[in-house]
This record gives sequence, structure tokens and C-alpha cells, in this order.
Amino acid sequence: MAETHNATANIGVVGLAVMGSNLARNLASREGNTVAVYNRSPERTDLLTTEHPEAGFVASKSIADFAASLQKPRTAIIMVQAGRGTDAVIEQLTAAFEPGDIIVDGGNALFTDTIRREKAVRETGINFVGAGISGGEEGALLGPSIMPGGSVEAYKTLGPILSSIAAVVDGEPCVTHIGTDGAGHFVKMIHNGIEYADMQLIAEAYDLLRTAVGLTPAEIADVFTEWNTGELESYLIEITAEVLRQVDATTGEPFVDIVLDQAGSKGTGVWTVQTALDLGVPVSGIAEAVFARAVSSKRAQRAAASALPGPSAQWHVEDNDAFIEDVRRALYASKIIAYSQGFDAIVAGAEQYGWDIKKGDVAKIWRGGCIIRAVFLNRITEAYAENPGLVSLVTAPYFTEALAGTQDSWRRVVAGSALSGIPTPAFSSSLAYYDSLRSKRLPAALVQGQRDFFGAHTYKRVDMVGTFHTLWSGDRTEVESEGSSH
Amino acid sequence: MAETHNATANIGVVGLAVMGSNLARNLASREGNTVAVYNRSPERTDLLTTEHPEAGFVASKSIADFAASLQKPRTAIIMVQAGRGTDAVIEQLTAAFEPGDIIVDGGNALFTDTIRREKAVRETGINFVGAGISGGEEGALLGPSIMPGGSVEAYKTLGPILSSIAAVVDGEPCVTHIGTDGAGHFVKMIHNGIEYADMQLIAEAYDLLRTAVGLTPAEIADVFTEWNTGELESYLIEITAEVLRQVDATTGEPFVDIVLDQAGSKGTGVWTVQTALDLGVPVSGIAEAVFARAVSSKRAQRAAASALPGPSAQWHVEDNDAFIEDVRRALYASKIIAYSQGFDAIVAGAEQYGWDIKKGDVAKIWRGGCIIRAVFLNRITEAYAENPGLVSLVTAPYFTEALAGTQDSWRRVVAGSALSGIPTPAFSSSLAYYDSLRSKRLPAALVQGQRDFFGAHTYKRVDMVGTFHTLWSGDRTEVESEGSSH
Repeated sequence: MAETHNATANIGVVGLAVMGSNLARNLASREGNTVAVYNRSPERTDLLTTEHPEAGFVASKSIADFAASLQKPRTAIIMVQAGRGTDAVIEQLTAAFEPGDIIVDGGNALFTDTIRREKAVRETGINFVGAGISGGEEGALLGPSIMPGGSVEAYKTLGPILSSIAAVVDGEPCVTHIGTDGAGHFVKMIHNGIEYADMQLIAEAYDLLRTAVGLTPAEIADVFTEWNTGELESYLIEITAEVLRQVDATTGEPFVDIVLDQAGSKGTGVWTVQTALDLGVPVSGIAEAVFARAVSSKRAQRAAASALPGPSAQWHVEDNDAFIEDVRRALYASKIIAYSQGFDAIVAGAEQYGWDIKKGDVAKIWRGGCIIRAVFLNRITEAYAENPGLVSLVTAPYFTEALAGTQDSWRRVVAGSALSGIPTPAFSSSLAYYDSLRSKRLPAALVQGQRDFFGAHTYKRVDMVGTFHTLWSGDRTEVESEGSSH
Repeated sequence: MAETHNATANIGVVGLAVMGSNLARNLASREGNTVAVYNRSPERTDLLTTEHPEAGFVASKSIADFAASLQKPRTAIIMVQAGRGTDAVIEQLTAAFEPGDIIVDGGNALFTDTIRREKAVRETGINFVGAGISGGEEGALLGPSIMPGGSVEAYKTLGPILSSIAAVVDGEPCVTHIGTDGAGHFVKMIHNGIEYADMQLIAEAYDLLRTAVGLTPAEIADVFTEWNTGELESYLIEITAEVLRQVDATTGEPFVDIVLDQAGSKGTGVWTVQTALDLGVPVSGIAEAVFARAVSSKRAQRAAASALPGPSAQWHVEDNDAFIEDVRRALYASKIIAYSQGFDAIVAGAEQYGWDIKKGDVAKIWRGGCIIRAVFLNRITEAYAENPGLVSLVTAPYFTEALAGTQDSWRRVVAGSALSGIPTPAFSSSLAYYDSLRSKRLPAALVQGQRDFFGAHTYKRVDMVGTFHTLWSGDRTEVESEGSSH
């Protein structure tokens, strides 16, 4: 196909649905960028270029033209639905590009797909970068948090371009090279998992304020607005207040009361838990959040179960202000656990896949642009700066102190919920995790005994090196074992 | 290769490690069976035939000889480590067998591998059956619970052979044709997931009796022995008493105190949770059990976290007997939830993969031979017999009544654990699930509001058909939406 363009663009975007269009507009709005755009159906391309003449887009109707419109090394960001569509576009771009060029997948790809694709594309001499982009449509337009993987070489070209469009906090763009191949999409996946937990924890706090003391959504909105001035300050707390303050125009009821209570999901929460299970990392807060959405969607079960008996007593809250402060502290403590578990998954993933991920930098680039942006993340960055080898966030002095100061409240809230029948799966799971982690002895010893009894799985001893088995169906003496059998 | 055998055996076993040897001996001990055996390294074969001349094994040193020693249709059970070894043996047998013959994989294969293998082998005209076999070494020898998948045709030949070696309860062998292709291994996987939850719940009950009221392991053994006479009667409760009664010969200490409190795992618990996540089924009890083992194995984290502050107060139990009864009821209630969630996963798997699984029959064949065998399973069989379309076990009258009678105890135990810092992740997660399921309104509505705010994910209304979106960054009016975007 004839090249109808001069190579005038320094960056291209393929896929012009809302996210792609917004990212292209964001790129075009930054000084120094000329943006090539391409979409499979040209109608979308026309719409974008017509609606935004100010962007000066260089539009193409074929991949060959699109490639020709890019300066070398060509750099293109794919913004299509994750899955097979991504593979098709990568194939087309790989055919049209040359060694040294850079293909970026800005979608929500599963990181193992990104590892596979990076390996395949690298063999052609072209760079492939999986980049997690968080912040939704608005973030894409105004400044997202960007988590690119891929090679250090590719990041030399790509870094300045991504820095130009990322959110900025304290003068620093919310983008950093996370690690090689799939590291960026891995960290974006964990970000989304944490987002699930954060949202569920907020939902439980809301439910407690509503159910245990009968505050109205508007009153709870005020509570969240107040919380947003303190250590919980974050985008999710802020928008929760907005949602709770909203009144439905049709009915005059609080908006939250007319919304069907069935939460949907898009897969990254599930991926986070499945991946953490493979890595042996307990991410109970995230798992409970994913399960909570699943429960909410079981209409037939919920209809049948709505007649099930509840507790004999309701919660008698004596002091509303003290109760609200208890819930705030329970939320903060549980949130620390959720982030701690999420960072454990990052550490384990980095070890498993050979990525050199700077945990403090991850927390830093999450401070702006993305859904979980929060003041709180500064504390995480500081904790890893103080001790890069920190084995768990909860053991960092700042967080240990925070948990010490909040735990009595946290315990009261979980206990009261259990007694009064208000479901707080993420609050209670986070507390159980905290108490498990700090336990000097866990009943896992009994589990090992059971496993040795029925499956000869063997056990280790607290006082001797070696692996042992008790002859349970024999004379019950102990023997040393080479390993386990089943 | 020359055929050195006449076809005298009606069943063969490939792979003669402990499980395979025991299964072969079990088969040989039943009237009418002549058992062919083969192992890659002939030493194991020699050992088995030498140690058990009474079995009358027909031993072969090659797969061709092994095939020749089998009557047609040839039927062979593979008992090798799950994974690549299985594929290699299947390939050898497929080459040596003929259309109409039957290859059984009796290992712990992932059901999706079994689906793949069944499809591939079926193309040769040979039948492939993935069969879950539970009961450990002892079960394999004396009578396991067997969960075969594969075709109805293959089960006609295989059924009588498996029935001859299975455990027997109330005159019925613990084996039934679960469904086609991977159904057997799927149900075996869920069995193991439930086993994880059951063991964790028992461990939490033990920990409470030990930590909150200071009972000794021997005293707790007596409690479990007593519990084993009632509705909790089960193999796991029985062996827990045995393990707790055991005294370490070296130190004179209770056995459970000299075992290192790091619980290992073999993968089927992880698979269960990962699969349930794919199916959208909340299996929080199983997940918390898997996570509890993971936490126990984090040595560095636990060492650092052992200094973390605990609650300011301990549990002041006034009446030990009442407390013990509370714990028993909490265990029973949580166990109902774990099984209910496990059966939900079976229902969802059956729907996803097109299996016609009789839930009542699954509960029935779990009553003997396997690790989770329990009187309790009769109640599950009855519940599904009464109502085959039961949407959740907890809504069956028997279980609803059981939960009504136990829930105040359950709530006290979870609340007390939270206040006193004893980790009960599975107890508390199960209670939260129960309270979620029976909630008339869940805060999932707020989560939907948040998702619509930051990602335009849309929501449904309680009072109107359709899908809606509020223009949060616009004038905050509501618009009808075609679907969700992100």
C-alpha cells in the first residue's frame, strides 16, 4: 500500500473507543506531541478528528498508512478490548513496523498474556510494552497513573511520552518503569484487586452506619466528607460522599436506594486472587471483596435466603459519635491490611517472574490519576524508603502504630457486626488475618497432624531438624521420613 | 514386541507407588478380579508381586506385555503423579490399546486436563475416564470413595469393577458415574476444597478451646470424642481426637505442641478456589482455609509480626461447658456453610461444562472411604432428594433449622474471637457469608454507584427495567445506557 503520509507523528494510538480517544486527546494536548490515530472502523476515526480538530490528529485508514505516519522509532499504543482483538492488532503492527519500533498494549491484559506477547514480538526485533493505565475515562483524558513493563531500552523512548500525559503529584508524573515484560500489567492487576477491597471496605462502613445507627445516606455522606479530611483522604472516599449525597430525580429517594444491589465485575479482581493463590500469598481482603460481589449477584439464592433467621438482638449503639469513630478506625485498619496483602502479592510476583519492582515507586505513582489514589500511599512509599526489605507493611513502624491505635475499635466493630447480623466479610477477614499473622502459635500444627494421619503427608518439628511421620495405623511411634507421600 | 501373556486379567494398574499398589491389592482381593500390573521401573513391580503373592498379580515389564495380559475391552487404571507423567502413560497406553478399551486416570488431575485428555483419547476410539479416588493410602487399600467421569458406555464396564473395591455404606458402594469427561475430577477437586475448610474449622475450634479457656490437648481430645457421637460425627473429628491425644515420645509433650505450625498443601484447595472464582461462586470458607495455610507458612512475616500488639483484653469465659457448646455449634454452622458453598460450585461447574450431576448421589458416595466422610452427608442427600432444584443447601429446612439453632452461639464465638485476638478466619467468614446471603439489601448498591461514578459501568434500578448511567461529571442527571463502557 502506498505511503500517503510523511512520518510526522511521534506517537500513535490504535483503537479509538472512549479510553483510546481520551488518551489520544490527552497526548495531543501536550506540547511536542503529534498523534497518529487509527481505528478498524473508520467512522470512529472520523468522529474523533471531526469533534477535535484542535488535536491535529494524523488519521489513517489502514495500518500501513498509520505506520508510515509515525517517526522512527515508531511508537504506538494499542487501546482495544483485551483478548483476541489485542493479538490481531499486535500481528498487524508487527508486520508494518520495523526492528527498534515500540508497540504498547495499554489495555487491561492478563500479565501472563503480556509475557507471552512480549516474548513473541521481541523475536522480530520490535519492542513490546504492556502498560497498565488506571484512572478510567477521565484519567485517560486528564492524566492517568501509568504502569509500563517491557524493556529498559523501550522505556527510554516511551518514558518521556508517558510522563507528558500522566497525572502529576508533587511535581512528579505518575509513571515509572515497573519492570520487564508483564510487570506493568501485573502491578495494574494488583492495583485493581486493592481497589476491590477498598470499595468493599467502604461499602461495609456505609452499611454499618446505615444499619446499626440508622443514619441517612445524606448524613453518611457528611461523615465520609469529614473522613476525607484525615488519614482516609482518598478519591474513593470522596466519590462515596458524592454518590451518597445524590438524590434520585424520579423518586426523590436517595440514589443509593434505587440502585439494584448487585455488583458487577470485570475480571481483574478474580485474576488478582487467582494469581495470589498461585503465588501462595493470602489476599483475603481482596478475595472477600470479590466474593461479596458474587454473593450480591446470586438473585435466586438471595431470594430464597432472605427468609433465613437472623440474630435475636440488634446492635444498641449508645454513643453515635464514638460508634462512627470506631467504624472509621476499623476501615483504616482493614485498609492497611488490604494494601499490605496487595504489596505482598507484588513482592511474590516480582520474585516469581524475576522483576526488580520498587515497591515505594509503585505506591508513589498510585498517588494520582488512579482510582485508589490516596494520601495514605505516601506512608507506604516512606515505609519502603525506610526499609526496602520490609517483610510486611504491617510491620513498618508507622502502620504498626496505626494498627495499635485502631485495633480496639476494629475489634468492637467486627464483634458487634457478628452479634447483630450485619455482614462485614472484609472487615472481619482482615482482622482474622492480622491476628493470624501475629500469633506465636497457629493451629496449623493440628492441620499438619491431621494430614500426617490420613495421608502420611509428614510434618516438621519445632525442636529438631528433619521431616517426620507418625505410624498412626501402626504402633504410633515416630519415624524420620524422606519426604511426603500421598 | 511379542505377546508373552494370555489375556487373563480383567483390570490393570499402571504406576505402583503406595496408592497404585494399594489399589491393585484392593482389586486383587475382590472375587472375580485378576489384576495386571505395570510400573516404569520394574523394581517396584517385583517388590509388589514378591510381597503379595496372594494377590496373583499378572506382572509385565513392558506396556505391550501389559496390554496383552488384559481381556478385552482392556481396562487400565493409571496411578501416577498428576501432570506430565500422566500424559506420557496415556500416550503409551493409547498406542497399545484398541478402540473400545478403557483408560482410567485415577490421579488427582486438574479437571480441565481431564477434559482435554478425554477429547484427545476419544478420537482414537478408546474410552478415557478421569476418576477421582479419595481416602488416601488406607482408602485405596480397603475401600475408597470413587468419583468417575467419562462416558456412560465406559462406565458399563468400569462400574462393576469400581463397585467391587469401593467403600460400602448401608450396603451401597461409594461410587457413582458423576458425569462425562472431567466431571469426576471436578467433583474430587471440590471434595478436597471442602476438606480444607473442614480441617481449618476444626483447627479454629481447637484453638479456641486451647486459648480462650486453657484446655489441654488431652482434654480437647475428649471434647472431640464426645462431639463425634453427635451431629458432627465424622472421620476428621475422630482423627482430630487421636492426634490431640497423642503424646510425643521424645519430649513427653503433647504431639500437637512439637509439630511445627506450618501447614502444607498439594494444590487441590488452590484449584477449587481458582475454579470457583472463574464460575463466580463465593467459596469463602474454602478460600480462608487455603489462605490460613499460606499465612502459617510465612515464616519471615510471622517472625516480624509476632511483636505486633494484640487486644487489651482477654476472653473471660464464665462457664466452660457453655463455651464448649458454643464452639461446637459454631463449628457445625460453619461446616454447613462450607458444604453449601462447595455444592454451589458443583452446581455451577455442572452448568458450565454440561454435566448432569446428581448432588444427592455425590453426598451419598462421600459417606464412606473419603476424608470428609460424615453422618452429616445423609442430611445433604435427603435435602436434594426432597428438592432436587434446591438453590442453596442453607435454604433446605433441615439446615435452616440447624442454623437457627446454632447462630447465637456462632455469633458469640466470632465476636469473642475478634475481641480477644484469636484468629478465626473461617468461622467469621462463614458467618459473614450467611449474613450476606440473607440480607434484604446489600451495600453492593453503593459499589455499583462508585463504579458508575469512576468508570461509567452503569447500574440497574430496583424500580425500572433497563440499564442506567448518571452523568456524574456533568449535570448529574440519569440517562439510559446501552451497556457499560470502560
